[in-house]
Amino acid sequence: MNFSVDKSMEILERTPAILNTLLKGISDEWLFNNQGPETWSPYDIIGHLIHGEKTDWIPRMEIILSGSGERRFEKFDRFAQFEASKGKTIDELLDEFTSIREKNLLLLRSKNLREADLAKTGIHPAFGEVTLAQLLATWAVHDLNHIAQISRVMAAQYKTAVGPWVEYLGILGNTKTT
Amino acid sequence: MNFSVDKSMEILERTPAILNTLLKGISDEWLFNNQGPETWSPYDIIGHLIHGEKTDWIPRMEIILSGSGERRFEKFDRFAQFEASKGKTIDELLDEFTSIREKNLLLLRSKNLREADLAKTGIHPAFGEVTLAQLLATWAVHDLNHIAQISRVMAAQYKTAVGPWVEYLGILGNTKTT
Repeated sequence: MNFSVDKSMEILERTPAILNTLLKGISDEWLFNNQGPETWSPYDIIGHLIHGEKTDWIPRMEIILSGSGERRFEKFDRFAQFEASKGKTIDELLDEFTSIREKNLLLLRSKNLREADLAKTGIHPAFGEVTLAQLLATWAVHDLNHIAQISRVMAAQYKTAVGPWVEYLGILGNTKTT
Repeated sequence: MNFSVDKSMEILERTPAILNTLLKGISDEWLFNNQGPETWSPYDIIGHLIHGEKTDWIPRMEIILSGSGERRFEKFDRFAQFEASKGKTIDELLDEFTSIREKNLLLLRSKNLREADLAKTGIHPAFGEVTLAQLLATWAVHDLNHIAQISRVMAAQYKTAVGPWVEYLGILGNTKTT
C-alpha cells in the first residue's frame, strides 16, 4: 500500500477513541499490570504516547519542513513517561492524549503537504536521512504497534487462567517490550 | 491475575466499540488487505469473531452447564467466515457482531455463575477436559488476540512506507496468521 497523508490520518484520528474505550473505567489489574521487569503496563504506554505527541512527530516534522540547517532530530526519550505520568489518573492521561493528538492533527492538516514536502528529509540520530513521508507513515504504525502491545500485555494477565488454550493463542507467546 | 467473570466481561463488552471505532469508515486498503496467502484481513477477522459468538463460546458454556452426557464440544470452524461474510459490508458485519455479543453477554450475566459452576468441565476436541472458567478467560483473550492481529495486519500495509524505522517497530516483524 502506498503512503498518503490521508491514510495515516485515518489511523491517527481513531487511536484516542480506541484507547479511551479500552481503558476508561477498567479494573486496576488490567491497567497497571505489566509482563515483568522492563515491560510496560497499559498505563505506562499512554504516557509514552503523550510524550511522542509532545516531542517526536510534530517537532520532527517542523525540523524537516524548516528546510535549513542540519535538520537533525533530538533523540526521543523512551522512558520520559515514568516521571511525567506521576500522580496522574488514567483518565487524565487519556484526556491529555486525546487533546494533544487533536491539536497535532489540526496542525498537520493546516500544512497542506504536497509531494515535494513529503520528500523533504531530516537526520535521525540512529539511522540518518529519513523523509517526511516515512515519518508520517511511522507515526501511524507506531499507534498500531502500541494498540497491539496494550492488547498483548492485558492478554498476558490471563495466561494461566486460559489453561490448555494457551497453545492456541499466539498473543500469549510473546513478551517483547515494544 | 486471577480469573473472574467480571474481569472477562470488562474486555468482552468493550471489543465491539473498539472494532467499530477502528474499522467503520476506513479505506478499503486498510480493511481488505492481508499479509499474503493464508493470512486474514481485518474484514475476515470480524467474520471469524461473529462465527465464534454463534458456535463457540456460548454453545460450549451451555454444554458445560448441561452437566450431563459426554459434554464434548463441536470442533470450531476457523474458515467459516469466508462463506458466511460473502456479500456483506463491513458495517453489516460490525453491526451483527455488536448485536450478537450484546445478546451473549446478557445471557452470560443471566446465569449468575458461582464458583461451583466455573469449575464444571467440558471436553475440548483437541486437548480434553477444560473448565468453564478457562473457557470464559479464553473468550476475553481471544478478543485481545484479534485486536492485536488487526493492528498488526494494518501496520504491515505500511511496512515499506516507514523506511528505516522498520527496525524499531516490533509489529512489522511478525506475520503469524492468528
